[in-house]
Amino acid sequence: MALESLRYRRGSLEVLNQRLLPGQLRYERVGGVQRAWAAIRDMEVRGAPAIALLGCLSLAVELAGGAGPQEDLGALEEFVGQKLGFLLSARPTAANLGREAERLRGWVRRRAETPGVTPQELRESIIEYIEGLLEKDRRDNRSIGAHGADAILGGLPGGGPVTLLTHCNTGTLATAGYGTALGVVRALHERGALSRVLCTETRPYNQGSRLSALELRHDGVPVTLIADSAAAAAMRLHGVHAVVVGADRVAANGDVANKIGTFQLAVAARHLRIPFYVAAPSSTCDPSLASGDLIPIEERPGTELTQLGGVLLAEPGVDVWNPAFDVTPHELITGGIITERGLFAASDVCGQLAERGER
Amino acid sequence: MALESLRYRRGSLEVLNQRLLPGQLRYERVGGVQRAWAAIRDMEVRGAPAIALLGCLSLAVELAGGAGPQEDLGALEEFVGQKLGFLLSARPTAANLGREAERLRGWVRRRAETPGVTPQELRESIIEYIEGLLEKDRRDNRSIGAHGADAILGGLPGGGPVTLLTHCNTGTLATAGYGTALGVVRALHERGALSRVLCTETRPYNQGSRLSALELRHDGVPVTLIADSAAAAAMRLHGVHAVVVGADRVAANGDVANKIGTFQLAVAARHLRIPFYVAAPSSTCDPSLASGDLIPIEERPGTELTQLGGVLLAEPGVDVWNPAFDVTPHELITGGIITERGLFAASDVCGQLAERGER
Repeated sequence: MALESLRYRRGSLEVLNQRLLPGQLRYERVGGVQRAWAAIRDMEVRGAPAIALLGCLSLAVELAGGAGPQEDLGALEEFVGQKLGFLLSARPTAANLGREAERLRGWVRRRAETPGVTPQELRESIIEYIEGLLEKDRRDNRSIGAHGADAILGGLPGGGPVTLLTHCNTGTLATAGYGTALGVVRALHERGALSRVLCTETRPYNQGSRLSALELRHDGVPVTLIADSAAAAAMRLHGVHAVVVGADRVAANGDVANKIGTFQLAVAARHLRIPFYVAAPSSTCDPSLASGDLIPIEERPGTELTQLGGVLLAEPGVDVWNPAFDVTPHELITGGIITERGLFAASDVCGQLAERGER
Repeated sequence: MALESLRYRRGSLEVLNQRLLPGQLRYERVGGVQRAWAAIRDMEVRGAPAIALLGCLSLAVELAGGAGPQEDLGALEEFVGQKLGFLLSARPTAANLGREAERLRGWVRRRAETPGVTPQELRESIIEYIEGLLEKDRRDNRSIGAHGADAILGGLPGGGPVTLLTHCNTGTLATAGYGTALGVVRALHERGALSRVLCTETRPYNQGSRLSALELRHDGVPVTLIADSAAAAAMRLHGVHAVVVGADRVAANGDVANKIGTFQLAVAARHLRIPFYVAAPSSTCDPSLASGDLIPIEERPGTELTQLGGVLLAEPGVDVWNPAFDVTPHELITGGIITERGLFAASDVCGQLAERGER
């Protein structure tokens, strides 16, 4: 069984404490929203989809346990709204959680207005709605994996096996399961078409070495860990067929914000004529931002670079620039953007998805 | 006073134990060749010029202290040869030490054959020869700094101040003083023409965060530390005017072997139309290698990526590819190669230096 970020069945939720990885594999019980809030704030769980699901599922667990008003539709609706608002305060940049919370609130409001619905029915349907999010994330990731594998193999004369390079962690530990860019890796592996995947360590938080290498080895996927600096040399010397990464946000013009270092990988891939793919659910598109230049860049504390565990890597007072992500211009995403609805040219993805009216 | 890798006066030598940096600044006495050998093997000192000088100076200290045969020219020559051979066994890749040792041996042989020379005169002249290497390294680095500053400022319409980006450590801690790429940084700073230098942390050994940031701050040079992955984003967003790195070896065609990640930086610089310079003494040219493809790539232990201090970064058994350096093709060295004899186009540097007959 794959390593999962979350383990859920109705009334019960556990989170894998990722702060303890790779040394210790410990699932911790999440009895409700308060515990989920702490897990999000303390980065026991990370990855936008996993954060959103942990938050919503912790609410489902509370509701299944009978928390909140029993007799009054409006009061129950308000209870849900308050819980979601509290969850959002855990990490200001948890964009997916914000979007899911907003949708859920709107859905609850409409559902509460349905003539004849009882508070118990409303409660039950909220739980089902949230469980549907979990299922949808897993299903979408499987679709992303399949579309990505088709795209990568379709672009190669021989049909594989292929060597891929990826960055950060976009796998079972960042999502409800299977993963986005790592979903593509898994799909190729399941088809017997993956020779090897190279994982960057992804400084400064080491999601590649701590998480991606771990979850891929756990599943028997052949993986090699490299320093971030070794990526271009690896592309040149290891016969990399494609680079596949995830996305935090896709602007209307197809520019992609993702983990710091993504831009550099895309530049190297283009120089070496290796196709560069972004794998992300369609919900990552943000048509409200015309281009990547409008995406604000979160800067993280310098201590992430000056110390690690108890080890001092640089003088504590040194000036540090530590952006959490960078923006890759759409023209460098030469392979395209892989969503659960198929492969799109980067510059077309937001428009095409909007046109289909399915967003 | 600058942080120095070595402190020498006749009969006395100390080495800064770089393994303790940045937490602790400790100079340790090197009484002779045996202690220097251990310091090289255990990487208390690193950087090809510093390694070569530490080795040779430790021999000078022994000679000044009266070690070795007193009465016989041939025996003294053999003593020197044995000591140098032993030093070379400390690190197989210490190319500069090997070259200096070979030259020194040849010089001693010729000197021993000079009619009328006494063993005491030979001993004295070997010490002076070695002291000359120290002086030459410092003088050459100052020249590299001056030529580099001229080149970078000459290429800019406004004449500065400039923002630079560098990689690894090529400063006072890697040389006898001043540095090569960091010598260029220092020269610009001394001219009041440096706005800031961005240092990559340089995984997996963190020479950028542990050493470059330390020695530049120590000298009051404005420095900002970044993750290796942030380099291209920094070039794009921080108005970097030039990238300057060192070199481990320059092939006859101008391809450059240097710390892993250099190739990636060169690709990013070209994409962003930022001039890319290599700063290295002319002795780095190796005309015996026609191109960079012939330079063997040293692979270091995977543990450098799976653990740091006592912290586990990845599962111990994971497959790791950890090359110590990569090769940057000459056409990406758009600014040129800065030596103590001036600036050269990368593809011309070895030929021009050989033509001048000064090598």
